[in-house]
Amino acid sequence: MIIILKENADSAQFEALKKWLTGQNVSLHISEGIQQTIIGLIGDTSHIDLDIIKQFDIVDDVKRIQEPFKNANRKFHPLDTVVEAGGVKIGGGGFTVIAGPCSVENEAQITAIAESVKKSGANMLRGGAFKPRTSPYSFQGLRAEGLRLLLEAKKITGLPIVTELMDLSQLDLFADVDVIQIGARNMQNFELLKQIGKCDKPILLKRGLANTYQELLMSAEYIMASGNKNVILCERGIRTFETYTRNTLDISAIPALKTLSHLPVIVDPSHAAGIARFVVPLSLAAAAAGADGIIVEVHNNPSCALCDGAQSITPPVFDDLMEKIRHILPFRCKLPQKD
Amino acid sequence: MIIILKENADSAQFEALKKWLTGQNVSLHISEGIQQTIIGLIGDTSHIDLDIIKQFDIVDDVKRIQEPFKNANRKFHPLDTVVEAGGVKIGGGGFTVIAGPCSVENEAQITAIAESVKKSGANMLRGGAFKPRTSPYSFQGLRAEGLRLLLEAKKITGLPIVTELMDLSQLDLFADVDVIQIGARNMQNFELLKQIGKCDKPILLKRGLANTYQELLMSAEYIMASGNKNVILCERGIRTFETYTRNTLDISAIPALKTLSHLPVIVDPSHAAGIARFVVPLSLAAAAAGADGIIVEVHNNPSCALCDGAQSITPPVFDDLMEKIRHILPFRCKLPQKD
Amino acid sequence: MIIILKENADSAQFEALKKWLTGQNVSLHISEGIQQTIIGLIGDTSHIDLDIIKQFDIVDDVKRIQEPFKNANRKFHPLDTVVEAGGVKIGGGGFTVIAGPCSVENEAQITAIAESVKKSGANMLRGGAFKPRTSPYSFQGLRAEGLRLLLEAKKITGLPIVTELMDLSQLDLFADVDVIQIGARNMQNFELLKQIGKCDKPILLKRGLANTYQELLMSAEYIMASGNKNVILCERGIRTFETYTRNTLDISAIPALKTLSHLPVIVDPSHAAGIARFVVPLSLAAAAAGADGIIVEVHNNPSCALCDGAQSITPPVFDDLMEKIRHILPFRCKLPQKD
Amino acid sequence: MIIILKENADSAQFEALKKWLTGQNVSLHISEGIQQTIIGLIGDTSHIDLDIIKQFDIVDDVKRIQEPFKNANRKFHPLDTVVEAGGVKIGGGGFTVIAGPCSVENEAQITAIAESVKKSGANMLRGGAFKPRTSPYSFQGLRAEGLRLLLEAKKITGLPIVTELMDLSQLDLFADVDVIQIGARNMQNFELLKQIGKCDKPILLKRGLANTYQELLMSAEYIMASGNKNVILCERGIRTFETYTRNTLDISAIPALKTLSHLPVIVDPSHAAGIARFVVPLSLAAAAAGADGIIVEVHNNPSCALCDGAQSITPPVFDDLMEKIRHILPFRCKLPQKD
Repeated sequence: MIIILKENADSAQFEALKKWLTGQNVSLHISEGIQQTIIGLIGDTSHIDLDIIKQFDIVDDVKRIQEPFKNANRKFHPLDTVVEAGGVKIGGGGFTVIAGPCSVENEAQITAIAESVKKSGANMLRGGAFKPRTSPYSFQGLRAEGLRLLLEAKKITGLPIVTELMDLSQLDLFADVDVIQIGARNMQNFELLKQIGKCDKPILLKRGLANTYQELLMSAEYIMASGNKNVILCERGIRTFETYTRNTLDISAIPALKTLSHLPVIVDPSHAAGIARFVVPLSLAAAAAGADGIIVEVHNNPSCALCDGAQSITPPVFDDLMEKIRHILPFRCKLPQKD
Repeated sequence: MIIILKENADSAQFEALKKWLTGQNVSLHISEGIQQTIIGLIGDTSHIDLDIIKQFDIVDDVKRIQEPFKNANRKFHPLDTVVEAGGVKIGGGGFTVIAGPCSVENEAQITAIAESVKKSGANMLRGGAFKPRTSPYSFQGLRAEGLRLLLEAKKITGLPIVTELMDLSQLDLFADVDVIQIGARNMQNFELLKQIGKCDKPILLKRGLANTYQELLMSAEYIMASGNKNVILCERGIRTFETYTRNTLDISAIPALKTLSHLPVIVDPSHAAGIARFVVPLSLAAAAAGADGIIVEVHNNPSCALCDGAQSITPPVFDDLMEKIRHILPFRCKLPQKD
Repeated sequence: MIIILKENADSAQFEALKKWLTGQNVSLHISEGIQQTIIGLIGDTSHIDLDIIKQFDIVDDVKRIQEPFKNANRKFHPLDTVVEAGGVKIGGGGFTVIAGPCSVENEAQITAIAESVKKSGANMLRGGAFKPRTSPYSFQGLRAEGLRLLLEAKKITGLPIVTELMDLSQLDLFADVDVIQIGARNMQNFELLKQIGKCDKPILLKRGLANTYQELLMSAEYIMASGNKNVILCERGIRTFETYTRNTLDISAIPALKTLSHLPVIVDPSHAAGIARFVVPLSLAAAAAGADGIIVEVHNNPSCALCDGAQSITPPVFDDLMEKIRHILPFRCKLPQKD
Repeated sequence: MIIILKENADSAQFEALKKWLTGQNVSLHISEGIQQTIIGLIGDTSHIDLDIIKQFDIVDDVKRIQEPFKNANRKFHPLDTVVEAGGVKIGGGGFTVIAGPCSVENEAQITAIAESVKKSGANMLRGGAFKPRTSPYSFQGLRAEGLRLLLEAKKITGLPIVTELMDLSQLDLFADVDVIQIGARNMQNFELLKQIGKCDKPILLKRGLANTYQELLMSAEYIMASGNKNVILCERGIRTFETYTRNTLDISAIPALKTLSHLPVIVDPSHAAGIARFVVPLSLAAAAAGADGIIVEVHNNPSCALCDGAQSITPPVFDDLMEKIRHILPFRCKLPQKD
């Protein structure tokens, strides 16, 4: 961390600042220029609050050199983390495919889709029971009943399940879920992050719609600092000025997050695009760019889906996508590359 | 709502769509052009899910004409809502000033600031007990103890208090709080919105960092649809490409939200700017543009604040700001103007 | 186009609006509801100015149904456009690779790189002579001398050349250039677009940093409406809140632009990322997602490049990338897919 | 400027970097830590190209401490610049009002509006002759004839005129124009900036739709580095996710730009909002926040305007606005305030 002082900084305040800083367990390297004095902080600065330093009147600017996250940082954990969930591995060079409907609708639907995606080669089953909807008048999911149906489908197919938790009060219901998904709108629900950090279940953490890589990794850090190291990062599209697609898939998030962090990185092409016919090109792009997997919406009858049918692909399209992915994987990018 | 069909739409699907639509309690007005057929929906469409319509294969596009919110809509409630909290009125042509520190730090601090802002003319006291912080290693607030100190300061000064709720599990502690604040990062925490909609306490709802007016009003709608009509909207700056300021205050939100909705609209210049010396110009701008009030950070010793001191103004600056505001108010914009 | 009138619209103004509209060579389809009247415009509306309609006091809202571009619209030109430049074809299912340094620096540099990329399989040579730089104090390119050196390299290698035109006053110098590039910052330099539309040279039009697909296609329309149909669209990354990468590559632009338009779509992974080690994953993603080619920066000595060396890959990395692309192409997405 | 090296940086490369840096006319201050070496650059770094430094393999990151602009920097020019145009002063504590129609349409229109706004107290006349339009099919302005009519209106009313230049080829026609406007889409048309920097006419430089304060000031720097110091900065709204308003007025740009620079800062509320009834609140906000003036669209018959009528206010509304502004000015914010 580097602190740039204002010109002609008051010496009493300078002493006060130095005293505060040394109390933070770092050592100081001070360069007094003719016009400007610069303080370099040496040691672990991840716990130091930038905002407090900026409050000192004599401080002109503060710049971080080290990232403010530690548990999620590849610098301190050079090897890829491999998360295990229900016997399936995510990360470390493989390609895990999570597929299923946006919402669980009924037993016949979820079972049929689960069997179909399994046959095509999917590794895990997704399906929404608790649904975050912009309007209070939209379908809010089958909730507890949806979880029950997902667990039925797991029993039949053997596919581990991934589903979204929206509030701490629902946590008890998730005891048999294999991966808990934290949605984009909850990425900075810090109380939730702290609590799920206390269980040891794998967490699929989606990037917020207007959040940076560092903010995503700080949210992962919240979970990991509470004790749970099984975090899977998910790029699901960010908000941009383009409204033709629902969101904009940030494909660079794959090499970027894998450079900054050792955690697995998967891609959700369905929510990113919001348009079924873009799911195949985006999935292939994610595979080629080095993602650790995808989470993709598949529906056996998209025009009757209770939500998001417009972005779901059908089982035959999914089957063809799986075939294409298998051909691309041997030639895709290996990350992190050496410089 | 207007539905545009694809060219040469299949007639069986057309019938299916018409059947689904008439089941939604609206009547249809169909214009069959040579190339394109358009369906106009007549009646209340706020409960209709756009996404379901888009799933019909024959649908090319759907466009809303009516806003999807009802309780928060000025069209159905032409008169300004005036929210009362602890004897103070917000909305309806007045100008309410909420002031206080970012975080409650100790009894002496909160009491001294409360007395000072009261003397300068503030109507309510703000102060954070539960603090949403990007880093798990930053100060997280005094929590329950912070609430206790706020209630002490209320007892001494008589100022009603506003403070942030971060999770439903904290709700019981807020029984004596006058206004519950929902922070920007929780604006789309839908489970939280539903639950606080069941109490009758005034809610100060902050706009999310990358959310639109309509999304803010849909979140207000969640609260109101659950029964609580006492919602105060707060513009607190949005994320833009500019990083010199912490966020970008959207001053147009004042006339826009007051046009779209009957709810009071206040402005938070402190979080918007993140720079203490910009708080005065932004507060004056908010007053001139027709806001119903401001919520502003004041600290008696900003360089020792435990968080956000860089954006807090001192009591003398606040006193001078109040004086300027009093001069500007008679000449400010009255909203909503007639066209 | 659909026009929604305000409630209780004045009938004299309604007549005035209808008169103006029928003067625009479209026929009207009027639906008078109980509360709201809606006018549907039937016929070609691409020439109608939305802003003029909005000025009528009685108009509440106007919504386009048809896209406002015609020449660039796939609806009117279902088959892929194939642009020919110096004997090389771009579009129509192939994959064209344009490679070379960011800036032309000297004869030895440009010739060596040209020969190297040709050997690896590049189809065209890129190189900047006129350089748009944010600072007036940065290197502005070799300008006319840079063009001369590019033409030398073309003579030696036979590779057609692509280079950027910044101002109309430079146009005469570009007589022997094969493809004129219009940079992102000039995407809405409308006078420039009109004038280059009067020549018949292929134009590589880069998407602006904060522009939508429709705005890009409207800029293509400017060129095409002036007579020049040889337009190549280029996605080069957009500005988002993420600052770790220089810009954010919008990979969905490939299927989206190819759905909306018949023009070829290529990707610039180098400017999008601004980081050399991300160029390979982004190039593979572009190939997999169905792009018609890439334009990529290659430098034989990146740490001595006069500009943008940090985002240039070396000849061996480029050679390896070409090899990987050849394996991926047979399995990539074919666009536009049928629904 | 501070350069952070990678761990275990190669010493030959370190020597090469040091040699290159000392050739840039700065002195170096090197801090060799146990893990990381940091180089501080002392002296004027505004001419140093960050991108070149980043190319050195051993460089991990580079951070500017000084702003990269000099001529436009308040640090080097503490006093406000006052620009004179046709006898009117802009900057230095006054409030200059520029008013007129979006487009010049005919002699009767421009003369009538000019006389009307003069009577209400406007100081200068605006009016578009060359119009940048997104669609090639929209009205492109009266061009040379429009300039002639503006000069007529100037002769009659004595109001100096402000109008937009879109391309260098039009420059000769602007000989008698008092202030040349450079539009938002041309803010980074660097060839244009260089050339208008060679004349001595005042330049009103509009901020680009997605540009930062620093980028705006770098564009001012282009003009000033060429010799022309008469630059007026104009905040006209930026693009955000909000589409209800045309753009989002960044009211903080006023105190921010006046802190960073000595140049006058005016606000365009008409283009920012795109909605006539928001022009009054935004203008009052700009006055209260300390702007040096506004440029506002006034039309005597908005529903017949050839472009942008929806955002023009009528003469009576303008007259009332002027009255309100006069009352607010004595109590507005004086900038730059001392900390």
